[in-house]
Amino acid sequence: MTKSRQAFQTIAFDADDTLWRNEEIFMNAQDEFIRLLSPYHSEAYIREHLGEVQVRNLGHFGYGIKGFTLSMIETAIELTEGRILGHEIQQIIDLAKCMVAMPVEVLPNIEAVLKTLQSKCRLMVITKGDLLDQESKFARSGIADYFDIIEVVSEKLPATYEQILAKHNIPKDEFLMIGNSLKSDVLPVLDIGAAAIHIPYHSTWVHEQVDDSILASYENLVQLTDVSLVLEHLHRDKIQQELA
Amino acid sequence: MTKSRQAFQTIAFDADDTLWRNEEIFMNAQDEFIRLLSPYHSEAYIREHLGEVQVRNLGHFGYGIKGFTLSMIETAIELTEGRILGHEIQQIIDLAKCMVAMPVEVLPNIEAVLKTLQSKCRLMVITKGDLLDQESKFARSGIADYFDIIEVVSEKLPATYEQILAKHNIPKDEFLMIGNSLKSDVLPVLDIGAAAIHIPYHSTWVHEQVDDSILASYENLVQLTDVSLVLEHLHRDKIQQELA
Repeated sequence: MTKSRQAFQTIAFDADDTLWRNEEIFMNAQDEFIRLLSPYHSEAYIREHLGEVQVRNLGHFGYGIKGFTLSMIETAIELTEGRILGHEIQQIIDLAKCMVAMPVEVLPNIEAVLKTLQSKCRLMVITKGDLLDQESKFARSGIADYFDIIEVVSEKLPATYEQILAKHNIPKDEFLMIGNSLKSDVLPVLDIGAAAIHIPYHSTWVHEQVDDSILASYENLVQLTDVSLVLEHLHRDKIQQELA
Repeated sequence: MTKSRQAFQTIAFDADDTLWRNEEIFMNAQDEFIRLLSPYHSEAYIREHLGEVQVRNLGHFGYGIKGFTLSMIETAIELTEGRILGHEIQQIIDLAKCMVAMPVEVLPNIEAVLKTLQSKCRLMVITKGDLLDQESKFARSGIADYFDIIEVVSEKLPATYEQILAKHNIPKDEFLMIGNSLKSDVLPVLDIGAAAIHIPYHSTWVHEQVDDSILASYENLVQLTDVSLVLEHLHRDKIQQELA
């Protein structure tokens, strides 16, 4: 007989592109950057090179706007063989200041779902990126009060989730993670034996994409097209648990 | 009759310049930066301008190496009226990569004190700066195992400490904070009615310095010249509590 799982006592949400728009902010900055370098190179070449520099610099500078900005500057120097002008680099820094100050746009249906879930379980945010930037977005989002815990982490590996669960005394079978990134929000959570729901965002950074052959090995992958379907899914899941 | 305080159940340490050397890393990078700009301006002028840009950018970029680097780049552009060369800016980015990779040098007597305290209370690190950078230093320090909790925060305000204490269910009168910065580690902790010990470091960033007139209003300020004196102080404090 299969042991029936407990209801989820803690539901955690990723933040960027799960609770609020984020990828567009990077996309728009990248478009500005490409425009800046367009006298020197083709769009495709600039885009490809920036991607390479970003991934190369992740170990030095991590995720977030500041690391992205340093990578843009480094790309600009490399692609112009040092001919980039001071005021052009200043434009890149100004882009970063704009990115940091962008209004936080909460995604559709998020607040309604949080409102319903709030009375049923403990809500948490688990996000990666710059600490100051994530805290600032959280504070400005208008939805901070729904959450009991916010965790900003530098990477989302299986060990990261293990540590968070241990820290807050959360049994694995009572934890559900919801997010737009298979690589960061879903697979590492399934890997430790907890539950996760994937809600794809219309655009995902290529570095966060996962190969189909890897995906095929996960039987218990739940994918929903919109956060509003989470409540229905939880309800169905509960009935199945009761029947098990 | 004065209510006697409980013994400290949790002792928290600041990290940079309390557990390990840090300010020298910034100082050395700053010296390199000044050397880079020396064809353009006097040392004093560069130093002053960099300090201004750093403080101006704290709200955008926060504390830590990445924000400092963006401020160095912005200063270089401003002080050369945009004439700074691409390869010179690359040197600044390379400085940042070196800073991030610097070995972590734990300060004298720290490990002996942690070893003794470990059996008596719960140990914690409360530090501000770049999340990835602080976590990486913590992991490389060799002293991570002494600590039960690490908290990386974006600011150290009274409310920050209130939140950390609430989160871990720590009564104020059972908490002691130890650090080198009066502004960040000591005064905000005293402000919420908890205890703090100031252990000055030989150099402190001017932005972290506190005016004497403010200091004069704190009666319960404890200052020790070295972390090795903490144990003796706690012993004395305990006897005084018992006599009270």
